[in-house]
Amino acid sequence: MTFTSRFDAISPLDSRFYGGDAQLYAALHPYLSEEGRVRAQAKAEAALARALAEEGIATTDAAEAIAAAADRVGAAEVYAEEARIGHDVRALVNRIREGVPEDARRFVHLGATSMDIVDTANAWRYREAVERVLLPRLGLLASRLIALAEGEADTPQAGRTHGQHAVPITFGFAIAEYVSRLGGRILFLQQTARALPGKLSGAVGAYNAPALLSKDPRALERRYLAQLGLGPARHSTQIVEPEAWSDLAHACVTTLGVMANLADDMRHLQRTEIAEIAEGFRAQQVGSSTMPQKRNPVSFENVKSIWKAFMPRVITTYLDQISEHQRDLTNSASQRFSGELLAATAYAATRLGASIDGIHIDRDRMKANVGMSKGGIVAEALYVLLAKHGHRDAHEAVRHLTLEADRGSRSALELAGQDPELRPILAKLTPEERKVLDQPEEYRGLASDVAKDVAREWRTKLAGVLPE
Amino acid sequence: MTFTSRFDAISPLDSRFYGGDAQLYAALHPYLSEEGRVRAQAKAEAALARALAEEGIATTDAAEAIAAAADRVGAAEVYAEEARIGHDVRALVNRIREGVPEDARRFVHLGATSMDIVDTANAWRYREAVERVLLPRLGLLASRLIALAEGEADTPQAGRTHGQHAVPITFGFAIAEYVSRLGGRILFLQQTARALPGKLSGAVGAYNAPALLSKDPRALERRYLAQLGLGPARHSTQIVEPEAWSDLAHACVTTLGVMANLADDMRHLQRTEIAEIAEGFRAQQVGSSTMPQKRNPVSFENVKSIWKAFMPRVITTYLDQISEHQRDLTNSASQRFSGELLAATAYAATRLGASIDGIHIDRDRMKANVGMSKGGIVAEALYVLLAKHGHRDAHEAVRHLTLEADRGSRSALELAGQDPELRPILAKLTPEERKVLDQPEEYRGLASDVAKDVAREWRTKLAGVLPE
Amino acid sequence: MTFTSRFDAISPLDSRFYGGDAQLYAALHPYLSEEGRVRAQAKAEAALARALAEEGIATTDAAEAIAAAADRVGAAEVYAEEARIGHDVRALVNRIREGVPEDARRFVHLGATSMDIVDTANAWRYREAVERVLLPRLGLLASRLIALAEGEADTPQAGRTHGQHAVPITFGFAIAEYVSRLGGRILFLQQTARALPGKLSGAVGAYNAPALLSKDPRALERRYLAQLGLGPARHSTQIVEPEAWSDLAHACVTTLGVMANLADDMRHLQRTEIAEIAEGFRAQQVGSSTMPQKRNPVSFENVKSIWKAFMPRVITTYLDQISEHQRDLTNSASQRFSGELLAATAYAATRLGASIDGIHIDRDRMKANVGMSKGGIVAEALYVLLAKHGHRDAHEAVRHLTLEADRGSRSALELAGQDPELRPILAKLTPEERKVLDQPEEYRGLASDVAKDVAREWRTKLAGVLPE
Amino acid sequence: MTFTSRFDAISPLDSRFYGGDAQLYAALHPYLSEEGRVRAQAKAEAALARALAEEGIATTDAAEAIAAAADRVGAAEVYAEEARIGHDVRALVNRIREGVPEDARRFVHLGATSMDIVDTANAWRYREAVERVLLPRLGLLASRLIALAEGEADTPQAGRTHGQHAVPITFGFAIAEYVSRLGGRILFLQQTARALPGKLSGAVGAYNAPALLSKDPRALERRYLAQLGLGPARHSTQIVEPEAWSDLAHACVTTLGVMANLADDMRHLQRTEIAEIAEGFRAQQVGSSTMPQKRNPVSFENVKSIWKAFMPRVITTYLDQISEHQRDLTNSASQRFSGELLAATAYAATRLGASIDGIHIDRDRMKANVGMSKGGIVAEALYVLLAKHGHRDAHEAVRHLTLEADRGSRSALELAGQDPELRPILAKLTPEERKVLDQPEEYRGLASDVAKDVAREWRTKLAGVLPE
Repeated sequence: MTFTSRFDAISPLDSRFYGGDAQLYAALHPYLSEEGRVRAQAKAEAALARALAEEGIATTDAAEAIAAAADRVGAAEVYAEEARIGHDVRALVNRIREGVPEDARRFVHLGATSMDIVDTANAWRYREAVERVLLPRLGLLASRLIALAEGEADTPQAGRTHGQHAVPITFGFAIAEYVSRLGGRILFLQQTARALPGKLSGAVGAYNAPALLSKDPRALERRYLAQLGLGPARHSTQIVEPEAWSDLAHACVTTLGVMANLADDMRHLQRTEIAEIAEGFRAQQVGSSTMPQKRNPVSFENVKSIWKAFMPRVITTYLDQISEHQRDLTNSASQRFSGELLAATAYAATRLGASIDGIHIDRDRMKANVGMSKGGIVAEALYVLLAKHGHRDAHEAVRHLTLEADRGSRSALELAGQDPELRPILAKLTPEERKVLDQPEEYRGLASDVAKDVAREWRTKLAGVLPE
Repeated sequence: MTFTSRFDAISPLDSRFYGGDAQLYAALHPYLSEEGRVRAQAKAEAALARALAEEGIATTDAAEAIAAAADRVGAAEVYAEEARIGHDVRALVNRIREGVPEDARRFVHLGATSMDIVDTANAWRYREAVERVLLPRLGLLASRLIALAEGEADTPQAGRTHGQHAVPITFGFAIAEYVSRLGGRILFLQQTARALPGKLSGAVGAYNAPALLSKDPRALERRYLAQLGLGPARHSTQIVEPEAWSDLAHACVTTLGVMANLADDMRHLQRTEIAEIAEGFRAQQVGSSTMPQKRNPVSFENVKSIWKAFMPRVITTYLDQISEHQRDLTNSASQRFSGELLAATAYAATRLGASIDGIHIDRDRMKANVGMSKGGIVAEALYVLLAKHGHRDAHEAVRHLTLEADRGSRSALELAGQDPELRPILAKLTPEERKVLDQPEEYRGLASDVAKDVAREWRTKLAGVLPE
Repeated sequence: MTFTSRFDAISPLDSRFYGGDAQLYAALHPYLSEEGRVRAQAKAEAALARALAEEGIATTDAAEAIAAAADRVGAAEVYAEEARIGHDVRALVNRIREGVPEDARRFVHLGATSMDIVDTANAWRYREAVERVLLPRLGLLASRLIALAEGEADTPQAGRTHGQHAVPITFGFAIAEYVSRLGGRILFLQQTARALPGKLSGAVGAYNAPALLSKDPRALERRYLAQLGLGPARHSTQIVEPEAWSDLAHACVTTLGVMANLADDMRHLQRTEIAEIAEGFRAQQVGSSTMPQKRNPVSFENVKSIWKAFMPRVITTYLDQISEHQRDLTNSASQRFSGELLAATAYAATRLGASIDGIHIDRDRMKANVGMSKGGIVAEALYVLLAKHGHRDAHEAVRHLTLEADRGSRSALELAGQDPELRPILAKLTPEERKVLDQPEEYRGLASDVAKDVAREWRTKLAGVLPE
Repeated sequence: MTFTSRFDAISPLDSRFYGGDAQLYAALHPYLSEEGRVRAQAKAEAALARALAEEGIATTDAAEAIAAAADRVGAAEVYAEEARIGHDVRALVNRIREGVPEDARRFVHLGATSMDIVDTANAWRYREAVERVLLPRLGLLASRLIALAEGEADTPQAGRTHGQHAVPITFGFAIAEYVSRLGGRILFLQQTARALPGKLSGAVGAYNAPALLSKDPRALERRYLAQLGLGPARHSTQIVEPEAWSDLAHACVTTLGVMANLADDMRHLQRTEIAEIAEGFRAQQVGSSTMPQKRNPVSFENVKSIWKAFMPRVITTYLDQISEHQRDLTNSASQRFSGELLAATAYAATRLGASIDGIHIDRDRMKANVGMSKGGIVAEALYVLLAKHGHRDAHEAVRHLTLEADRGSRSALELAGQDPELRPILAKLTPEERKVLDQPEEYRGLASDVAKDVAREWRTKLAGVLPE
């Protein structure tokens, strides 16, 4: 009736980010497309039929006939039936009923309320999307960051706070921050996806209908969910507890936040005046429709922008926490949008992973930048060493030196060497301590060690998620 | 490559709400689909070519050739070129260039930066979507509410605060609230849509390139925008001021909020125990896949739910207010999602309009509900009349009567009639005043007048928006 | 200079909700007031001094002198010094320095950056606030809900979906939902509070300064944090990883969401037409300044409203995830507001707990409400039993019966008994099955069992949090 | 009982930002403190008494006695009474009643519902806070930006997009962006504050009680509101239409957004590698507790951070749009927090204004930065001039030149001069056109004109808001 191509879509996810990436499209379609949604529900109906058979309520033949019919049902025909009767799950049930022998029909959906199917199907497909698509792509990004943290563990770089040079670090150390933060989020995301519950507790959660069919309706529920690898909710009404989904949304959004922060750092390191890294650029690629010289960090910008578009949506899950009594159904349309958040997270991970893979690192520039504020970047070391060796108000003394250095041509260190009060204390420094003052890039603490340790730690913790 | 039907979409807007409503689809597609987006940009390139000709920079022949070529360009071919060169607007330019004689090519996009096209095309298509789709549909909803406010202006209903009966109103008065609030939002929405600016100020807003072509580049900008019925931004950088779009988003979201509040009230009035209204229901319609008796307020629920899904997105526009220097481009992907908010507002207005059109009103039940708390619902009137006629602490006196009434079988009014202190004051009441106490549904103040006045007022104010 | 009473405050938390509740004030002040904030930082400086002594960098005498001086420092004097030098943590350091012998001064704050103190002090005081104030108050609420779930496990109530009667439950079952959801949030809140990390990794996280003082600066960090019962961040820059705090905020906000949903349900059950419960009301209490009869669910409303005020603030923690390079400091002011979220959660738990404690339950009305839609409330049972006993399209058959019942005076069940097709199937029902149709309140599935099981389960899981 | 100083507060607004700034405290206290809130409500009660007298319902003596008593009431005594009776407005009424002769008592609050007082008092005090505090402080900031735009209208600076040098502008032009955006927000803020309505329409908005007292209760309402300079809501229930407040909140938050963007730009221009501006720094000021050299943009950071803390709160106003029937009261606590948003906006304007006042501008560095990417920054000019003079694919030609320039030591311009195809076209350039290529800082379009024009325009538009 309506769509013939992705360009008919309003959502840029559909027309561009998911719809425009053939691999991502193929990976997510079974779980997050509307076709995938309907098929997951059909799969749940099949699981229900088999559970009814296992409990001796339906015959095995009926159950298998139902499962086979469910396997053949697609979105278009279900939507056509829904147009007639105005109820989506009943439409699915009718389509399955049509495909089975008459005496099996009464077992289709028997004992279930719509949400026993919908919530369960959602739990299954969201968990699958996370396990099969999001985690591998986040894992690939993590593995590239781990390699970078290790490979650049000894590359000096200016540490920056307030946008100002603070004290030196290494580039690998800077990357290790993201290994650690992204690693933490990956584990949290995995945990929240695996915690998604299903249900077969009927219209209000009290197993009213199932209890008419089975002596132990909670056993029936467990059988049903086991076929999809799910566990039951601790308590459910017509719906499962909404917190499980809200936790998953929080996991997605904070994962996007870590990626956005990394993208932002990369953008700034590519500033014309800083120029320590550059996003990869193809020979044919155009950076601007009017400025031919432009090579912009477009993928890093895109990841930040995707975060802007999707981060606020956690609010929707908080609104969906509130449902009157055993359900008010005002979470029906809103929850249909949940898959978009998973798709956006998968897309951002993919794009950022590719972008990190292609960055150019200018190590000479990094080192030069460390040196540019030489006087300042070791002021802390000067203060700490003076204090260590006995000065009673070293911070204030060095603060005055740096103010004086700002006004003149000599560095704070040079001024210290000429200060009658400080000179004798400076004379007490060990050669190693002195080296730190003279070669700023040596004042980097444990930066290299931390970079390597973090990389090693997460290679272990993310085993099973990182690509082999 | 990817999509063949709307069921391939992840966005439920695409697969279901917009994609599943043929009329809404046809109405919004020219403005909000990706195809519409690309074509609007081509339209802007045509307008630019003509403006260059008007200013004597290009020939008229070249301009018309460009306009004709622009008119033929579609999304699929532009996306194919973008895949090659990695820049969407340059891809559009290349496609138009291919369609014109060689000597006209250099005038395509001449002097413009991509955002001169993108921001301008967005201003055009969002304004058109509002004027041609959103306002008519909101107007239709408003007209139905106006009719309802007038038609039910005298239908007694219990006024409710805290979910408790307060004092009586009429159903038309209750609806008039939404006439007024929706009316206010419609005017605000119209105003914000008309305020969307375009631009032709070049790569950083300082007219660098245009100033190489024209003595008065601001005149060139005005010519360009005039063809699309737009005005220039007061100031622009690479982009127009983001506040204009944020205001429009706020207008959409608060309009959704008013509709959600109306939907919520309707839902509650349909509660089994209240039962004053009912959403229309077709004979074939199924309310629940397991409870055959169910007739649920599914459209009202849907509107509330759409609000939940889209309301938080204003946050994205606040994030897009912040763009470093003359633009940092982290608003690129996020702004692509803007059309979704307009589409959701149009959808909700359509669905709510249809739903209001079909509601069943149970006037007997409304009247009966007014009577059910007879003792309480006129306690205010009793207190005010006692005070008016001289009682010095009437509120406290009546409060005690209502506590006593709660414990016994007599109403507060009956108790007052037997109270030696109150009886003489009650004797001073005029017959009209007495009637208010004896017939609670008469204690409704100006409810009817307000309902009619509000209806009349907005019929005038919304002239041009309401259907004729 | 400014404040002399809580009524000078702009924040209603200060003037009313925390400032107006003497017990809550006393409980939260040590952790969440500005005085508490400064004292917690002084406590961290003391811990640092002792850690320096343990590592042999400072003498024990110096460390104890510093700890004693830190113990004496208060907010007013630190703020006075900050007004002079413009740096809050340095102001604290100066105040402590003033209180110690001259030769101990150089060890105050030695090796630390401000955020080593600030982030660590925040982790300590937020965890303490959760463990000592939030969890006990949430535990008290949970214990009351557990008692209610058990006590009302067999009290029949109408199950409601879409605001419509669905199938019967018990009131204890309805409460059990909140036992389970609140229980889950309590455990999550506890876990996120305990996961808050501290740090002593210096200005950019690479241990630059600490490495000048100690061979193993990570051991120094562990010693420092151990004194406050904290662990180190997996990786830190100038700041700890922001995700830990964002997780805690998410835990608070979703806990508020569960409480808001419970409050909403209670509000609706108190509606004039439903009247199944009532919030406690004191004899002197005034419900309305004009309607003397009013007894409103003001505490339930308040809890919902507190949720509205605080829920959006998770967004702030998402914004604070993004900090340029080793920190950009735009999280400084915003993070100062974090304590408000904890205080609001504590307040809501306290108020809701008191309110639940005082509710009046009208069991007769609950039962009467179950009966009011007799025909409908067992439609599901009728369909399932017909299907179970062989009917091939029972849902559709019963749906037609309910439509017919709506139009006439007989119930769907009566109509079924007269239907030639259905009568023989109905004859197959067991006496137990028949009872469910004839006495709707018996059609409640496992409602009682679930209520009791959930109560029992959470009594165990929350051991240590529930009051003894 | 509780507070004795601002350090007892949990809110950093109270303890630090408002409570720590004596001038801001004095300015905002009458409107936004809890004391101010109670006094504004007393003021509304006085206005009501006088309106009752004007309408002939109360005597003038009674009205003046009430007004005098209202003027004496303070927060502490009202709170004490509220503790007894559990209702805040009735507590106020009782306190006023105590202060008037017995025969005047019955006229206190007569005909009004609490929200007639609360909503009206809020409209009055929020409008006053905007007009008397926010606008003057925003006006001061605007006037400084206007002066800066004019003063630096001709100071060359690199225009930046994607963090990359794009084409040149002037610093005044960059500032003009904020003159325009801030100016627009100031007018919008003024307009939304002036649109805040009051009400005297009674318990459910239908004038039930007022109609018992007056033939024309809407005239009574107008008299009441006129005394506070307010107009009535177009329609009200127990409360005024929530959209008015939501619009004001949107105005505040988008104003904060403009300020945050300006602050961000200033932060980035202060980066060590860019160093074009610096925030003022006092001689005694400490930048870091460990890095003595630090001079950080702490005020700019603070403004960004305040935005993070308050921006999400618009969501609360959207939630408060939804109130069941004639009011559900779940907006009671949440709306108490509204004043915080106004206070935060006032604080940010004050702090940013002071910070802009003290910035140091390094014009030499700005010019040097323009030159640093000489080859690139005029690539657009080269392409446009080649196209203007007849080249048919100039963008692609120059793109290739810049790629070649990147690989070698010659600029794109030098390469163009040696290209056989381009040389003849370059020869056609006018001397003015050639100058633009040779002196990049001359390629700045209308930057100076726009800066001056924008400054002039807003000096006019903001007359009455700007300081004289």
